[in-house]
Amino acid sequence: MTRRALYGAAVLQPEVTAAIVSAVLAELVERGYARLSMEGVAKRAATSKNALYRRWPTKQDMVLAVLADIGVPMSDVAETGDLRRDLRAAAESMAAWLAAEPYSKIIPDLIAEAQRTPALAEAISTTIAAPRRAHLRSLVAGAISRGDLPTDTDVEMAQDIVAALIYWRMVVRQAPTEPDFIDRVTDTALRALGATTT
Amino acid sequence: MTRRALYGAAVLQPEVTAAIVSAVLAELVERGYARLSMEGVAKRAATSKNALYRRWPTKQDMVLAVLADIGVPMSDVAETGDLRRDLRAAAESMAAWLAAEPYSKIIPDLIAEAQRTPALAEAISTTIAAPRRAHLRSLVAGAISRGDLPTDTDVEMAQDIVAALIYWRMVVRQAPTEPDFIDRVTDTALRALGATTT
Repeated sequence: MTRRALYGAAVLQPEVTAAIVSAVLAELVERGYARLSMEGVAKRAATSKNALYRRWPTKQDMVLAVLADIGVPMSDVAETGDLRRDLRAAAESMAAWLAAEPYSKIIPDLIAEAQRTPALAEAISTTIAAPRRAHLRSLVAGAISRGDLPTDTDVEMAQDIVAALIYWRMVVRQAPTEPDFIDRVTDTALRALGATTT
Repeated sequence: MTRRALYGAAVLQPEVTAAIVSAVLAELVERGYARLSMEGVAKRAATSKNALYRRWPTKQDMVLAVLADIGVPMSDVAETGDLRRDLRAAAESMAAWLAAEPYSKIIPDLIAEAQRTPALAEAISTTIAAPRRAHLRSLVAGAISRGDLPTDTDVEMAQDIVAALIYWRMVVRQAPTEPDFIDRVTDTALRALGATTT
């Protein structure tokens, strides 16, 4: 309490919070979750460790809060009712997201750490994965109701396939993608799902 | 040289090497690549840091050597000439491998670190990925020559799809797999590739 009063900040200053969030992202990119320290973040944000602890009790809470911040909204990906176009848009959005910093550097690291930290796995699932999966479920449901996909479509697999192919090539293999990679992924997914209109 | 003589080991003792390799794997599982230290490995292997440095100049070299050791041979996966059976066997082998420790804990971590360390990316590609991809290429070539796959099969995608679906579900999502998951993956891959005999 004395320490807290020492810094004289009963109210959290938003510009300090913003500086800390940027610093967390930068440290995650450069050093990764395991090497990230409260001290390193405080130094980079030109603030004190106390300023961090006033906001979040632990490193894990801090990273989870930042994660919630970077979770990409899916609202920008349209649902036109044309299965090919909609799947392709979802693929394009995922590939663009994984190609851009800070995500390209941060995501594999968080996935790895999530194997050890259930709360992180939960946060990734809720913040990053859930909105994308909801969007894909909606696309697939629409396509089934229009008769563009069979009624016995494996909906779980349908939600996995586009993301799986993109993540595997770009992140796990770090392999080059063909200029028409997004089209290839879309074609592969449509065939895999037994789409009647390919 | 003096330091070396001090420990009196001109020849590397294989049982010490084996203890170090086990210790590296255990530290990778528990702490991950980023947190792994020469000191931690030496302590766990009940040996000296010098014993490590006599074998490998750096932590990275040490991990790469251990990686080469755990690279799983593909020779146990048969190639029967029946595309469904062969693809299913490849899927089963991959899933079993990713479900077993130490791989389940180590692989995501190495993939994450590989984004920062090109030598590690290269080693993963050569040691772990290359034999599996060669096996799948051979399966696909056989299927094309028998007429079970179209001559214009996307061979790159064909090598990706089984592994991508399994890795995505089991490692990235850490999501439950259905009892018939391997069959679902096989079905999805066969349809995606436009197999004539499904």
